[in-house]
Amino acid sequence: MEFRSDMTVELAYHVGLDQDVAKAARVSTLGEGAKEDGRPVEGLINFLMRDRHGSPFEHNSMTFYIEAPIFVAREFFRHRAGWSYNEESARYKELEPSFYVPDKHRKLIQTGKPGAYSFEQGTFQHRGALMGSFQVAYREAHLQYRNMLEAGIAREVARAVLPVGTYTSFYATCNARSLMHFLSLRTTRPNSAFSSFPQREIEMVAEKMEADFAELMPATYEAFERHGRVAP
Amino acid sequence: MEFRSDMTVELAYHVGLDQDVAKAARVSTLGEGAKEDGRPVEGLINFLMRDRHGSPFEHNSMTFYIEAPIFVAREFFRHRAGWSYNEESARYKELEPSFYVPDKHRKLIQTGKPGAYSFEQGTFQHRGALMGSFQVAYREAHLQYRNMLEAGIAREVARAVLPVGTYTSFYATCNARSLMHFLSLRTTRPNSAFSSFPQREIEMVAEKMEADFAELMPATYEAFERHGRVAP
Amino acid sequence: MEFRSDMTVELAYHVGLDQDVAKAARVSTLGEGAKEDGRPVEGLINFLMRDRHGSPFEHNSMTFYIEAPIFVAREFFRHRAGWSYNEESARYKELEPSFYVPDKHRKLIQTGKPGAYSFEQGTFQHRGALMGSFQVAYREAHLQYRNMLEAGIAREVARAVLPVGTYTSFYATCNARSLMHFLSLRTTRPNSAFSSFPQREIEMVAEKMEADFAELMPATYEAFERHGRVAP
Amino acid sequence: MEFRSDMTVELAYHVGLDQDVAKAARVSTLGEGAKEDGRPVEGLINFLMRDRHGSPFEHNSMTFYIEAPIFVAREFFRHRAGWSYNEESARYKELEPSFYVPDKHRKLIQTGKPGAYSFEQGTFQHRGALMGSFQVAYREAHLQYRNMLEAGIAREVARAVLPVGTYTSFYATCNARSLMHFLSLRTTRPNSAFSSFPQREIEMVAEKMEADFAELMPATYEAFERHGRVAP
Repeated sequence: MEFRSDMTVELAYHVGLDQDVAKAARVSTLGEGAKEDGRPVEGLINFLMRDRHGSPFEHNSMTFYIEAPIFVAREFFRHRAGWSYNEESARYKELEPSFYVPDKHRKLIQTGKPGAYSFEQGTFQHRGALMGSFQVAYREAHLQYRNMLEAGIAREVARAVLPVGTYTSFYATCNARSLMHFLSLRTTRPNSAFSSFPQREIEMVAEKMEADFAELMPATYEAFERHGRVAP
Repeated sequence: MEFRSDMTVELAYHVGLDQDVAKAARVSTLGEGAKEDGRPVEGLINFLMRDRHGSPFEHNSMTFYIEAPIFVAREFFRHRAGWSYNEESARYKELEPSFYVPDKHRKLIQTGKPGAYSFEQGTFQHRGALMGSFQVAYREAHLQYRNMLEAGIAREVARAVLPVGTYTSFYATCNARSLMHFLSLRTTRPNSAFSSFPQREIEMVAEKMEADFAELMPATYEAFERHGRVAP
Repeated sequence: MEFRSDMTVELAYHVGLDQDVAKAARVSTLGEGAKEDGRPVEGLINFLMRDRHGSPFEHNSMTFYIEAPIFVAREFFRHRAGWSYNEESARYKELEPSFYVPDKHRKLIQTGKPGAYSFEQGTFQHRGALMGSFQVAYREAHLQYRNMLEAGIAREVARAVLPVGTYTSFYATCNARSLMHFLSLRTTRPNSAFSSFPQREIEMVAEKMEADFAELMPATYEAFERHGRVAP
Repeated sequence: MEFRSDMTVELAYHVGLDQDVAKAARVSTLGEGAKEDGRPVEGLINFLMRDRHGSPFEHNSMTFYIEAPIFVAREFFRHRAGWSYNEESARYKELEPSFYVPDKHRKLIQTGKPGAYSFEQGTFQHRGALMGSFQVAYREAHLQYRNMLEAGIAREVARAVLPVGTYTSFYATCNARSLMHFLSLRTTRPNSAFSSFPQREIEMVAEKMEADFAELMPATYEAFERHGRVAP
């Protein structure tokens, strides 16, 4: 049995870079000449982002391998357009006893109302109550899950007792446009044109994806940052 | 605290009937004359289904209100194209202590391998082990969830201990084409052209949706049945 | 043979109103209690729009019947997410000789560069050149199309000579969210947060759709207007 | 002025091979162990195709550069799910005078009714009528287009007279699943489980894409062929 506080995000493979955004955009204005253009791409990409020409940002692909708690995967899979998923199945395999516990930086206390929460750190008492409850609940769930499997109950039935804090793993494939839409909703930054209120755990995943994206497509990323982190 | 074995499926509202499938199809062959056609629609719908002309089946909309365990919602939300969702949020509200337990008809024992499982009823011992483990695990999870909330821990943090057997509620909106695709994968019938292996619990939801669909769009439904339950 | 300058937009049928946006949103915060809520919806809808909670705006459906030139349909059908289409087919039927000519309000002269064009009215000479060329080209195209059909050439082959100014007809089904996205790109207004440069002819279609939408869902429409005409 | 009968299809770049289909599928059954699996992939891919597990075929990307007549692009862009497009714009640039004429192998005569046409070769007279009409119509359209541009009319207005046989160019990005769906509808083969009736010109494009696909992902392609050319 394992308690984890981190998220795994690995960029498995990808194709399509800043220059391919520009190439796709230039087919509109140049036709077949688009292919031979050697000009710098930054200005064009900046213009596309500003005026929300989104389609040139779709001719690329990034495939990530991710490990995160089920409640994060639940929020993640709400993103439909431009996303593909394959996830570990609790019908086909026994889930590993790996459970999420917040680390000491996680703010535990929530005040305010839906759409305008603010979070505070909490005291040692809060942290203690949390750790106690998480451990007891996770251990009991895992024990009963194992008991049922040993009694011969089908995995897909027994899994009903597993908590949403259990780690799952999945592949997620997206393109720059769908990724920017995801980042605009699942991270929170001062320079965002729109406010968003992601749960911290999915933001931890998003931040790692953002770092990979910034490295792969620096001109696209810079334009995203400059124009309020809104997907075009 | 409540234990449930049933699924709630209510057709909240809808628009578009068999005649509108025909009308959309006839715009292809008749142009604006499409609107005045008074012929019976069964033959045309049957032809569309057989030759997989899918788009005429999209000009309609059905909105369902559904209550089901989280593990069912997880499978449901994998359906992206032609589906819209809004779900109860464990970030914004405290979840009700309502938990899924299989009824006595649920086959509990699984044999075979992925893609070719078969299920058997199991004995009284199996049923007893299951009921014992479900109740212990659910009660402990709920107790620790409540303890954390009372200690002031944020709902979005405390919910990590809640099991995937907890009931959630959501609205799902689809059209006849996306619904038929869902039914082809989430039900299993002798007359299906392709084999599918849905988990029984999502099939229970799918069967109720199918009944509503069959009543709303009888000609479309009959053609679906006749042509191997494959979405066009 | 007919020359037209107008666009036909008819709302064929629809389902889902402002109150259903609110109902879908409240399932998040209230669970099953969502169904009994009787509070006014304007404030909630305004909040959803401001913070870009888009999914509650998808549980509704509007089906439009549209007649417009092929070049408008070409731009229209680039909208994929949340849109369904069925169009008159030049493979299955002979197209009517109905052709688009700009009316006298259409600005004919373009200056500037891609992404920053401005348009001016033009002189009588411009208008005269245009009308002459349109009529000659349309008549010749129609004559040769008819000649080929009479010679027994297949419709799908003969249609290659038909100009993109030929009128076509189609059904388009969308929801409030996908329609707002369309409107944000295909209309241009002073209060838009982002600049857009739609071709006037598709804007004529969009404006008629917008009028229907504003009447059906006034609270949603007002929030769209207030928050910079950006789809949530 | 140029008359063409061929279609250009170039695979610009791609990522994701048969082994990545298998890797995505194995995450379901193996979890993180999925990454180290060294077994042959053919059997697994065959099983996935047969039982219509479609999502593992989405974690790859192919970007094509295509030149084809506008009427082909019109049919092509009806494919929405899993497709991204950028096309040459007649608003932003003057279109090249390059026009489609059927080559001598194109069957010109159509008999039967919608959904069950059959095509025959036609006589020399048919071919002669066609070539005459195409040339006259294309030349007149091009002449009037040029006249208007020289008179100072905006490109987006003048283009209304251009025929749908004019060549356009575009980038199209897809994945193996969306490509197989396209191929199932836009090609016709004896081993297809469902009949389809694509227009020959889009089939010419589809066949070239199919050849690239077969080379890139041979195990996936073979399974597609074996199971009736139905997308999973």
